[in-house]
Amino acid sequence: MTEPKLSPNSANVDQEQFLTILSREEALARFEAALFPRDLTADDLALADAMGLVLANDVVAVVDVPPFDRSNVDGFAVRSADLVAAGEALPVRLLLNDEVIACGTAPQLPVKQGTATPIATGGPIPRGADAVVMVEHTQPAGSGAIEIRRATSPGQFVSYAGSDIACGEVLLRSGTLIGSREIGMLAASGVARVSVVKKPRVTIISTGDELVQPGQALRPAAIFDTNGAIVTAAVSENGGEAHFLGAFPDDEDKLEHVMREALATSDMLILSGGTSKGEGDVSHRIVARLGEPGIIAHGVALKPGKPLCLAVCDGTPVVILPGFPTSAMFTFHDMIVPVLRRLAGLPPRNDARVTAKVPVRIASELGRTEFVMVALVEGDGGLIAYPTGKGSGAITSFAQADGFLKIDALAEQMPAGTQAEVTLFTPHVRVPDLVIVGSHCTGLDLVTEPLARAGLSVRSISVGSLGGLSAARRGECDLAPIHLLDEKTDTYNTPFLVEGLELVPGYRRMQGIVFRAGDKRFESLNAEDAVRAALKDPSCLMVNRNQGAGTRILIDRLLGEARPDGYWNQPRSHNAVAAAVAQNRADWGMTIAPVAHAAGLGFMPFAEEHYDFALVTARKQRPAVRAFLDALASAEVQKALERAGFRPA
Amino acid sequence: MTEPKLSPNSANVDQEQFLTILSREEALARFEAALFPRDLTADDLALADAMGLVLANDVVAVVDVPPFDRSNVDGFAVRSADLVAAGEALPVRLLLNDEVIACGTAPQLPVKQGTATPIATGGPIPRGADAVVMVEHTQPAGSGAIEIRRATSPGQFVSYAGSDIACGEVLLRSGTLIGSREIGMLAASGVARVSVVKKPRVTIISTGDELVQPGQALRPAAIFDTNGAIVTAAVSENGGEAHFLGAFPDDEDKLEHVMREALATSDMLILSGGTSKGEGDVSHRIVARLGEPGIIAHGVALKPGKPLCLAVCDGTPVVILPGFPTSAMFTFHDMIVPVLRRLAGLPPRNDARVTAKVPVRIASELGRTEFVMVALVEGDGGLIAYPTGKGSGAITSFAQADGFLKIDALAEQMPAGTQAEVTLFTPHVRVPDLVIVGSHCTGLDLVTEPLARAGLSVRSISVGSLGGLSAARRGECDLAPIHLLDEKTDTYNTPFLVEGLELVPGYRRMQGIVFRAGDKRFESLNAEDAVRAALKDPSCLMVNRNQGAGTRILIDRLLGEARPDGYWNQPRSHNAVAAAVAQNRADWGMTIAPVAHAAGLGFMPFAEEHYDFALVTARKQRPAVRAFLDALASAEVQKALERAGFRPA
Repeated sequence: MTEPKLSPNSANVDQEQFLTILSREEALARFEAALFPRDLTADDLALADAMGLVLANDVVAVVDVPPFDRSNVDGFAVRSADLVAAGEALPVRLLLNDEVIACGTAPQLPVKQGTATPIATGGPIPRGADAVVMVEHTQPAGSGAIEIRRATSPGQFVSYAGSDIACGEVLLRSGTLIGSREIGMLAASGVARVSVVKKPRVTIISTGDELVQPGQALRPAAIFDTNGAIVTAAVSENGGEAHFLGAFPDDEDKLEHVMREALATSDMLILSGGTSKGEGDVSHRIVARLGEPGIIAHGVALKPGKPLCLAVCDGTPVVILPGFPTSAMFTFHDMIVPVLRRLAGLPPRNDARVTAKVPVRIASELGRTEFVMVALVEGDGGLIAYPTGKGSGAITSFAQADGFLKIDALAEQMPAGTQAEVTLFTPHVRVPDLVIVGSHCTGLDLVTEPLARAGLSVRSISVGSLGGLSAARRGECDLAPIHLLDEKTDTYNTPFLVEGLELVPGYRRMQGIVFRAGDKRFESLNAEDAVRAALKDPSCLMVNRNQGAGTRILIDRLLGEARPDGYWNQPRSHNAVAAAVAQNRADWGMTIAPVAHAAGLGFMPFAEEHYDFALVTARKQRPAVRAFLDALASAEVQKALERAGFRPA
Repeated sequence: MTEPKLSPNSANVDQEQFLTILSREEALARFEAALFPRDLTADDLALADAMGLVLANDVVAVVDVPPFDRSNVDGFAVRSADLVAAGEALPVRLLLNDEVIACGTAPQLPVKQGTATPIATGGPIPRGADAVVMVEHTQPAGSGAIEIRRATSPGQFVSYAGSDIACGEVLLRSGTLIGSREIGMLAASGVARVSVVKKPRVTIISTGDELVQPGQALRPAAIFDTNGAIVTAAVSENGGEAHFLGAFPDDEDKLEHVMREALATSDMLILSGGTSKGEGDVSHRIVARLGEPGIIAHGVALKPGKPLCLAVCDGTPVVILPGFPTSAMFTFHDMIVPVLRRLAGLPPRNDARVTAKVPVRIASELGRTEFVMVALVEGDGGLIAYPTGKGSGAITSFAQADGFLKIDALAEQMPAGTQAEVTLFTPHVRVPDLVIVGSHCTGLDLVTEPLARAGLSVRSISVGSLGGLSAARRGECDLAPIHLLDEKTDTYNTPFLVEGLELVPGYRRMQGIVFRAGDKRFESLNAEDAVRAALKDPSCLMVNRNQGAGTRILIDRLLGEARPDGYWNQPRSHNAVAAAVAQNRADWGMTIAPVAHAAGLGFMPFAEEHYDFALVTARKQRPAVRAFLDALASAEVQKALERAGFRPA
């Protein structure tokens, strides 16, 4: 991600790319073939430190567990033959031997015919005894004797030596992941140290002049380094010992130095950014000369993730992930995790799968296996898979997805209504308690806050007002937030409701004209006058909104027939408008008051918009819906909305 | 687990116990009511250190992601209005502005009408531009100009500011478990530190005079402390910061001192052992005086786990787990984990469930909710749930189970054939590749070793030869190891096969008489003479085997009509016989050569037993079965068997 490919032969570059692009399966197979089989390094660790690691060898039990025949109850060790004739009418009297077998004390006296020895739960059975009678089934019978009125079978209440774990048996196999249960078995057998596969040391490097680490100040045109943190965390989650070196600018000499140093001490090297084949991308040029055999695959017929680069440098895997977060994470999970887990001695990940209906058509590119991140909600007829489609540049596309579905390389689309197999990112589907699909607003977060506090999970999928209405009609959500002005009747929302939906009044959002504070052209004007002034100034650039947005209707009213410069800049959110003005990409635009204030912009109020909720009547009685309605009506939420700049309906 | 309850009023104690026993649900409800709601302590941590922890507060995005309108491709930032008329026949020529917008560099020049600015993927859109044209869709057109032959729509290849994450929106809710995906969202928003719920500090203490830590020498009558290690590990797995103090003898003063010290610095205190109400059990007496309200439940109608003790001492939960490992772990997971997770701010565990058929009748005690640990295998008609029934004293009952099923307090049994709901210990069912049900032998581990090395999972369920044959007939396993002598024909195994089963010859195990090395009574005798000598010596104690064991048939042959002392001591395994002789609980018995040698005992060979495999013919072609047969026939395995003291069939 640096300078664009502006060479005159870019068509050739493109051609070359196309020719060398491998299928996903072929790329992974070549990568694995260049790395495996290989010997894994083992480490000798104390048992408590072995949690989450993998056994490097079979562990054979060297003791019996229990180590001796053991009593399972508090009672008396007896010879069962002495009690063969015992019954209610025929008590048998046994003399007590002069010892009490507690836990941890070895018996000293044999149990001879006609005798018994008191024994505690866990105590070793003494010589001569072959059963235990519970204390509750005995009566004292004078000094040093007991009476028993029931027969007992040989072995009663005795756990024999080795009945839990037998000396000589293989307790755990090489390759077993050590969790608490394995620790229990090893401890029971007296194993204090185990040989485990050493965690592969994985060094992570971000590259790109534009990257700033979280917590630092974001200079203009820079972005926070997302991949560094998320790849580091995902390496840890998949058995690697992750070392993140930070983000480095695209300086070929310096970067090569850092990479060679890292390679010397790493079992795997992961870079992100710099994978396109443009002239400015230095990482892959460096990787090509780091060792043999070098680059295995550069370009994979995979979406997201086409620019992925896989290399093996003198035995060490080196990977360059795409720079965009969802591409980076998806290719990491799909192509790198299998290799990382093998290096860590872990079994392949066993991803859970569910079937879900795709509610909308998904277009796909021919010739590439395409993976679409989806969020799952419960529909009337089963699970629904909503594409979380903000694109591969968005971290939330990946982070807020429950899983992904696959569109074959030979398909151009997945039609609406398809029952698709969804591979889950986590073992369980956690269907949210409340599903809200429609137009998002930061005020909505204030309404759902009490639900979250009460442990109810809320999923909000942002598809705009009209998309929300469609989802509500199809029964795919509980509520659809909408703010649609019907121009004929000049009323909000109500005219758009259909059978089965009812309106829940939400709150009002003040729309107005924003400008940079200090811009003399707009100061002390009202909205109408400001727009008039802007239209007269040819250097004054506007930012519009997308067709179909409630705000766009208001802008068009103000503009009339005018199409000023910037009219075709049509972002899709209040925040994007505020950012365009704040960052001088435009001089004025229309957004809502809370967003304008958060961005530190001047604001001229123009009209109030009704942000309401279309409620699916059939779902009205669901506890989470009731909780939502209660929260919306509560004084607490109303106050929070007012503080944030919204007005009660 | 100390001295038995031998007071004359033990009947009263029993009565008292019965009266105060709570149902599982009631006990847990009272325990939680005494602890919650409560404020959880928060910690401010660097993002990388927050993995696996839980957010203590909502996190609101304070920046837009991306922070500016961004190009998604390498190309040229343009005004879409300039290209409205562009087409193959009508190329539009745009003059290039004198800058290249790379990643991380802020544009300096506006894109005026009729111009374009080169821009890299990730670069900020300059003022005036509203779309990006891919470099592949342009041609150089003389110095400082390009030609474009297609129209472009506003917003093409642009990701608007805030389209991924909008400033002001709630990014993550309080209570969210932080994994790599959450780290990615936080990093993308520039969040470097987060407020997380502090891990509850849980102190674990084992009690009992009989306990020895793994790695130390096992003195007579002592056992290794299993609960200390497994509870410590399970606390870590469920969000606690575990501190294991070791095992302490039942010394009331010392133990109280340790417990009070631990309580002062802990958010939870867990003891194991010492929960019965007998006189020797000190832990519960100490807990009763550690703080208010004290003991909440002591005795729960739960099997395994009846002696569980739950207390709250001045706000801190104190738990005494039963001493037997499976009881301890089961009650920990069922009753303690819900509380521990709430203390850690974690959501309730979401256990996966499957339906499986129970192949055998399971008896149950009326009046107690009974939980039965089961191992799952694939049968012809779905999953089969085998009880891993070695009892609550066995760690393997719990550790080798896939999950558990529940028998209602009001049921006396679960009939064979019941379709039961099994709650899984891990999210997935991992059905083993090869299932072996029957008689176990350490030699079998040598045969399956190559399978394990090849990544095939083998489950071996030890139910004896006859149990294995039944399982094979029902199609619940691939192979049943058997060693059954038909006395009529004096042949092994073949007479026991039925339709659908075939015999795979295994190996031979030498049976013989064992005695302690140095026991002058047996030295230099053969097996028959040794038994004759033993029968003449009334001080000489034998150890027998259980009815139905192959070994028992041989013993009975040697003994004829004689019933010497020790005849009724009838353990169920080769190892238990060896342990009884080695530990002086008996003077002689019969076991197999490898076990005798491992125990360091003298051995007089008597007869060779045939350890073979009944193979389910219908499963013969399964890859894991073929791998087993190949392994059994391999020179490698045959050599390993010989080295271990077995003989080829």
